[in-house]
Amino acid sequence: MSFSKRMSRIKPSGIRAVQKRIAGKSDMISFAAGLPDPALYPLEDLRKAADTMLEKEGATAFAYGLTKGYGPLLDYLTDRMNNREHVECTKENICILSGSQQGLGLAAMTFLDEGDVVITENPSYLGAINAFRPYGAEFVGVDTDDDGIVIEDLERALEENPKTKMIYVIPNFQNPTGKAWTLERRERFMEVVAKYDVAVVEDNPYGDLRFKGEPLPHLRALDKKGQVIYLGSFSKILSPGMRVAWTCASKEVATAFESLKETNDLQSPELTQMLTYYYLKMFDLEKHIEEIQVVYKERCELMVEMIQKYFPAEIKYTDPEGGMFLWLELPEGLDSDAILDDALAAGIAYIPGESFFSFDGVKNTIRMNFTMVKDDQIRDGIRILGDVFRKHIG
Amino acid sequence: MSFSKRMSRIKPSGIRAVQKRIAGKSDMISFAAGLPDPALYPLEDLRKAADTMLEKEGATAFAYGLTKGYGPLLDYLTDRMNNREHVECTKENICILSGSQQGLGLAAMTFLDEGDVVITENPSYLGAINAFRPYGAEFVGVDTDDDGIVIEDLERALEENPKTKMIYVIPNFQNPTGKAWTLERRERFMEVVAKYDVAVVEDNPYGDLRFKGEPLPHLRALDKKGQVIYLGSFSKILSPGMRVAWTCASKEVATAFESLKETNDLQSPELTQMLTYYYLKMFDLEKHIEEIQVVYKERCELMVEMIQKYFPAEIKYTDPEGGMFLWLELPEGLDSDAILDDALAAGIAYIPGESFFSFDGVKNTIRMNFTMVKDDQIRDGIRILGDVFRKHIG
Repeated sequence: MSFSKRMSRIKPSGIRAVQKRIAGKSDMISFAAGLPDPALYPLEDLRKAADTMLEKEGATAFAYGLTKGYGPLLDYLTDRMNNREHVECTKENICILSGSQQGLGLAAMTFLDEGDVVITENPSYLGAINAFRPYGAEFVGVDTDDDGIVIEDLERALEENPKTKMIYVIPNFQNPTGKAWTLERRERFMEVVAKYDVAVVEDNPYGDLRFKGEPLPHLRALDKKGQVIYLGSFSKILSPGMRVAWTCASKEVATAFESLKETNDLQSPELTQMLTYYYLKMFDLEKHIEEIQVVYKERCELMVEMIQKYFPAEIKYTDPEGGMFLWLELPEGLDSDAILDDALAAGIAYIPGESFFSFDGVKNTIRMNFTMVKDDQIRDGIRILGDVFRKHIG
Repeated sequence: MSFSKRMSRIKPSGIRAVQKRIAGKSDMISFAAGLPDPALYPLEDLRKAADTMLEKEGATAFAYGLTKGYGPLLDYLTDRMNNREHVECTKENICILSGSQQGLGLAAMTFLDEGDVVITENPSYLGAINAFRPYGAEFVGVDTDDDGIVIEDLERALEENPKTKMIYVIPNFQNPTGKAWTLERRERFMEVVAKYDVAVVEDNPYGDLRFKGEPLPHLRALDKKGQVIYLGSFSKILSPGMRVAWTCASKEVATAFESLKETNDLQSPELTQMLTYYYLKMFDLEKHIEEIQVVYKERCELMVEMIQKYFPAEIKYTDPEGGMFLWLELPEGLDSDAILDDALAAGIAYIPGESFFSFDGVKNTIRMNFTMVKDDQIRDGIRILGDVFRKHIG
């Protein structure tokens, strides 16, 4: 049986390749993770919420529901978007998703024909790039600096690529770099894209993990033309294993997502949506988020401190104000994938940065996770990694 | 923003159109449902399973897991396929899905390029037809008789359509007709398709709902070339709201599904997979299935009895040995969609059959559900519907 053309476009995940190499090695210090720390799940509260839900509405939790999502959770999300995220919307703008990843696939299905162009940041989330690949789009990367996407480069990319249908960005504590866009950059970005007939996917899984500085407006809040498809998620602030996320977009796009979701998986499980809702009703999510922020802030600051102490001065690093990752740039000419052999031999894992680019060839970058490592591991791991790097820098 | 070409191919569901018309009318007798009866969910047992799971492995249930599925559930399904469904396989042939519907979408993604041909039964499950539509395939319908798909017509369809990439069938108690294929028909089907380079999607949500006769081999069990993609589901025998289903296919296809699922939604929720597994470990699913069979058998037999008593003799009906539906054929020239107005005015709902065909124009058929109606409703509903039909037959 011959597969469709799109199957030849699928690329294995570079993260998985590393994770396979370290599987089962329990003494490894791993900066390769992409997970929130399970020790921070509000387990007891989730159990109480599950008990109450199953007692009160068990039959509903196990039955079919609507494709768009569980009604009370849709109401909660509408309220949250308006009053906490400062995005004006009604329930018609919302569609519940099985994780933000589903939003990426649905955005691709909604907008991309073969030969269309997708603009992403350089680098970007590889799970998004991989979700877009099967649809046969071309990728154009736009560089980012410390303030966010570089507007002049974006303008040039849009001018040079009239077939651009979609722009994918992560303005808050990006995976992989940890960078957040400034307010000015957000405003200028929206001014530029408003001149073009393009959809903007604003992926925001990490926005609530801000542990320094003030929250900045979402692109969707600055969006006057209904171009922005905002993706929010409970994965990093409550539980990734429940796979509850949502989009907030124009009515047309939210409806398109609903139609496609019906053909793709009918609906997200009623059980996980209801459990999320019961937790939100019975407990204080914002207080829980603050607890996560405190822990991640300590780990991130310790990692930066150790990098300053132990890494060769030639290595550049980001100093994130939130999220789960920071980003290293080794001197040109070094190959982080080759160095990984030595690092693994020394008991340290990380993700080489190349697979976060839509094109091959960027060899000297590294994604470092700080949410799944304890203080001792950060101290030891960064010190050892510093030695490994020093050997290669020579 | 302009949508992709595939968005213009999406068709609203004919079932939903009816359900919107009857929403909120609680005194309506509805034969329009497509649900298992929620009164039959093993609620107490599911609650106990949830309690135990959250106590023992709460952190795992709320964490990320593997795209392919929760390990112990994969082992259970491998065992179930071998020892209960008599399909030889290993864990490498299995991939857990978010409902069978996800399997339909993934099969389309895996096999269909624009202009390819998909063969379906006439009629077929409209949720499958709608899942295939976005990919730009052409549909060719093959008629069924009381024994299953008509082999001569299938051979002709395959010969006349060299671009056929996929055949979609429901050999057990099909939605919408309730028909089951005979053993001979299954064997001849597999002989014919083995001569062609086509994938066969064997959708089996209803196989366990056999309340008469003996189980027959799955196509996947008769498959010597690895062509058959079997889709199994817990939706009709345990809970549809958990969205736990699986495929059993060749290793190549199971791996393709896993890769695509990673880009589409990363994984099914760990929570629902683990809860399903804990239920299976702690309780007796087969005993629960027998309880469902007894209830559905009574309702189906009563419906057939009432049809014989109250419907005009010109109306043909199927007499299913399992499943959730039976199928009516009104005399040629009658329009079941037009008659629905009178039926609704008389307090009775059903689904006009036209939308279960991949082409327009079959006006005289009706899908009747017997799982969501009580005995009194069946008696009254069929009697009233008989009067409505008689008026139109004249």
